[in-house]
Amino acid sequence: MPQVTVTRRMHFNAAHRVHNPALSDDENRTLFGKCNNPNWHGHNYVLDVSVRGEVSERTGYVMDLAHLKRIVEGAVIDRVDHKNFNLDVDFMQGTIPTSENIVVAFWRLIAPLVAPATLTRLVLWETANNYVEYDGR
Amino acid sequence: MPQVTVTRRMHFNAAHRVHNPALSDDENRTLFGKCNNPNWHGHNYVLDVSVRGEVSERTGYVMDLAHLKRIVEGAVIDRVDHKNFNLDVDFMQGTIPTSENIVVAFWRLIAPLVAPATLTRLVLWETANNYVEYDGR
Amino acid sequence: MPQVTVTRRMHFNAAHRVHNPALSDDENRTLFGKCNNPNWHGHNYVLDVSVRGEVSERTGYVMDLAHLKRIVEGAVIDRVDHKNFNLDVDFMQGTIPTSENIVVAFWRLIAPLVAPATLTRLVLWETANNYVEYDGR
Amino acid sequence: MPQVTVTRRMHFNAAHRVHNPALSDDENRTLFGKCNNPNWHGHNYVLDVSVRGEVSERTGYVMDLAHLKRIVEGAVIDRVDHKNFNLDVDFMQGTIPTSENIVVAFWRLIAPLVAPATLTRLVLWETANNYVEYDGR
Amino acid sequence: MPQVTVTRRMHFNAAHRVHNPALSDDENRTLFGKCNNPNWHGHNYVLDVSVRGEVSERTGYVMDLAHLKRIVEGAVIDRVDHKNFNLDVDFMQGTIPTSENIVVAFWRLIAPLVAPATLTRLVLWETANNYVEYDGR
Amino acid sequence: MPQVTVTRRMHFNAAHRVHNPALSDDENRTLFGKCNNPNWHGHNYVLDVSVRGEVSERTGYVMDLAHLKRIVEGAVIDRVDHKNFNLDVDFMQGTIPTSENIVVAFWRLIAPLVAPATLTRLVLWETANNYVEYDGR
Repeated sequence: MPQVTVTRRMHFNAAHRVHNPALSDDENRTLFGKCNNPNWHGHNYVLDVSVRGEVSERTGYVMDLAHLKRIVEGAVIDRVDHKNFNLDVDFMQGTIPTSENIVVAFWRLIAPLVAPATLTRLVLWETANNYVEYDGR
Repeated sequence: MPQVTVTRRMHFNAAHRVHNPALSDDENRTLFGKCNNPNWHGHNYVLDVSVRGEVSERTGYVMDLAHLKRIVEGAVIDRVDHKNFNLDVDFMQGTIPTSENIVVAFWRLIAPLVAPATLTRLVLWETANNYVEYDGR
Repeated sequence: MPQVTVTRRMHFNAAHRVHNPALSDDENRTLFGKCNNPNWHGHNYVLDVSVRGEVSERTGYVMDLAHLKRIVEGAVIDRVDHKNFNLDVDFMQGTIPTSENIVVAFWRLIAPLVAPATLTRLVLWETANNYVEYDGR
Repeated sequence: MPQVTVTRRMHFNAAHRVHNPALSDDENRTLFGKCNNPNWHGHNYVLDVSVRGEVSERTGYVMDLAHLKRIVEGAVIDRVDHKNFNLDVDFMQGTIPTSENIVVAFWRLIAPLVAPATLTRLVLWETANNYVEYDGR
Repeated sequence: MPQVTVTRRMHFNAAHRVHNPALSDDENRTLFGKCNNPNWHGHNYVLDVSVRGEVSERTGYVMDLAHLKRIVEGAVIDRVDHKNFNLDVDFMQGTIPTSENIVVAFWRLIAPLVAPATLTRLVLWETANNYVEYDGR
Repeated sequence: MPQVTVTRRMHFNAAHRVHNPALSDDENRTLFGKCNNPNWHGHNYVLDVSVRGEVSERTGYVMDLAHLKRIVEGAVIDRVDHKNFNLDVDFMQGTIPTSENIVVAFWRLIAPLVAPATLTRLVLWETANNYVEYDGR
């Protein structure tokens, strides 16, 4: 049976501050520049969630994308949309909320929920010119 | 010699109905929701066709993309553009016309035609937020 | 008080056939080409709804865009999304479902509902390369 | 001499909270929903700045767009990029930082600086589906 | 009868050099910077052609967009696509090939050809962040 | 430690002519068509530079994207932006300036500079419908 990868694109927006509390304010400013602004800034994030699996003969789907959408909303979108990554998001506590760390945290929350399909890729766009991707390894 | 992947993006639009004739009308409505509308609906599809191969010293091309475009038009675009996947497309008969099944059917039609390059990926966008990809496995 | 125009972009998809029943099949084919396919084709439509008005001191809004979204969903989107413009949409009966006629029909349904703001422009994209706009005149 | 309108698209990102301090917390939550989150959220904003004027015979330009870019950076972008509209932006104090109020404030700062061309339109995209425009009236 | 505006988006690419032969090389470099590179540079241009008119009862169209496409191809696209605006394009001789001058020249070539509709707007994108528009005045 | 891939999208524009000087003019015209125009044509190129590595505990970054941007500007963008690939770009001499050859040349210039991260993919868009990608093999 062919294995196909299906992707659902999701959208959310959030505030954050790139800041390492283990460093001094000066070190933070030097490392992170304007991304370290104490009063936060924010982004319209775009998240592509890709799962891979066999195409069902009954449905012609790898996975109903409306179902995948609800899974991702429950696991991550509803917990981060219109929120502050540093202050409001429990699963990001103790982590610098860069796109790299966000995408790894999202993976851990989404991967267990998509069986029998397999989560194969997350792509997170922070701006139109910057994105990160993670494949679980 | 370096191996490069080149992609040509193609566009078509079509009507379809996600429907499994082996199931009852009630089961179809439950499984497929508004995508099961008996009078069809449709999409502007975007298809990315990627082939990989050596870069020719004579042309600097893996493959002339104008030639790839004509191959894809002849193999699939002209047979589905402004058509109904359920009623008008012979190679989709007996198959539920989901994006998953469409992309696998496209693969079988395009893959034999691109030698000496190799078809390595098809990506089919059904909407701006949903896409599927297939690598022949 | 400044007058600002605010726009909400909406998405839907639908099937249609460009066909004038007052003409012969031959005339229809000549006039409309592949858009006249008897078994329909379809599009992902994009609709930009623009309203203009004073900015409220209480809310900073011309109009809450979540409210505008619900108005447009009730007036048009829910009646055309995943539908067939020729067969399923009551307000298009007796009209050729071109983008021009669709956008004028949408105007008549939306314009009465946005007071005290004023509907000033509808833009309807049929494909990435074709769009129509209407200002009520 | 022909009058042409030239537009420069600019990008910035910022945090904000839609909140009217003259109202109670309950009223704010009811009016603004998740946009009222006390810990802020944010956006990647896109700003289109359009100026109109005669085409210079010497340069073929209405206005050098590199010059227009510097004007807009100095007047608004450098003051809002990676900032918090409620806390960091002096010219937004006393105003609810909705897109409507932001675009009117931007107009007042940019319009005096583009002579002999004339500022004719500002479009501010807050998300891919929401934008506001202002023409100074 | 309602008046609707319909737009066809067209694509072409070309080389050019922003250079005023009446000025010295130093003045050209100062005025135009890297856009004055003697060996040319180039762009993927996007052209939106908008015509306005009554909606025909016979066709539901203001104007068949396939017909408008052929008109614009014949009048301008075929004469500039994969060409050098300074060297290859007769109607740009004696004019600095800025977007402003290109869009005015395009207008003069297209406007006489779209009757009984009326050309109401040309928008020419030079890059994703720069565009010009002209309405014939 | 998780390995994440981060991508920075860059933009430049340039002129080129697809031409093999070892062939006759007739052969060049037959092989390359309008892309062989003797007076050049050009494109707005988009380049996606992807590097992979461990996420730093100190910064939350695989690599500071502002730093990656400066590396890519110095290595390639400043040498090709607003230039002619055939005449102005030393590292393309002796090579037909197709996207395939450009992306391989870019790889050789960028790959040595991103340690301790690893360059894993370059994607070069020549138009909105054509792109090439290279992974160093």
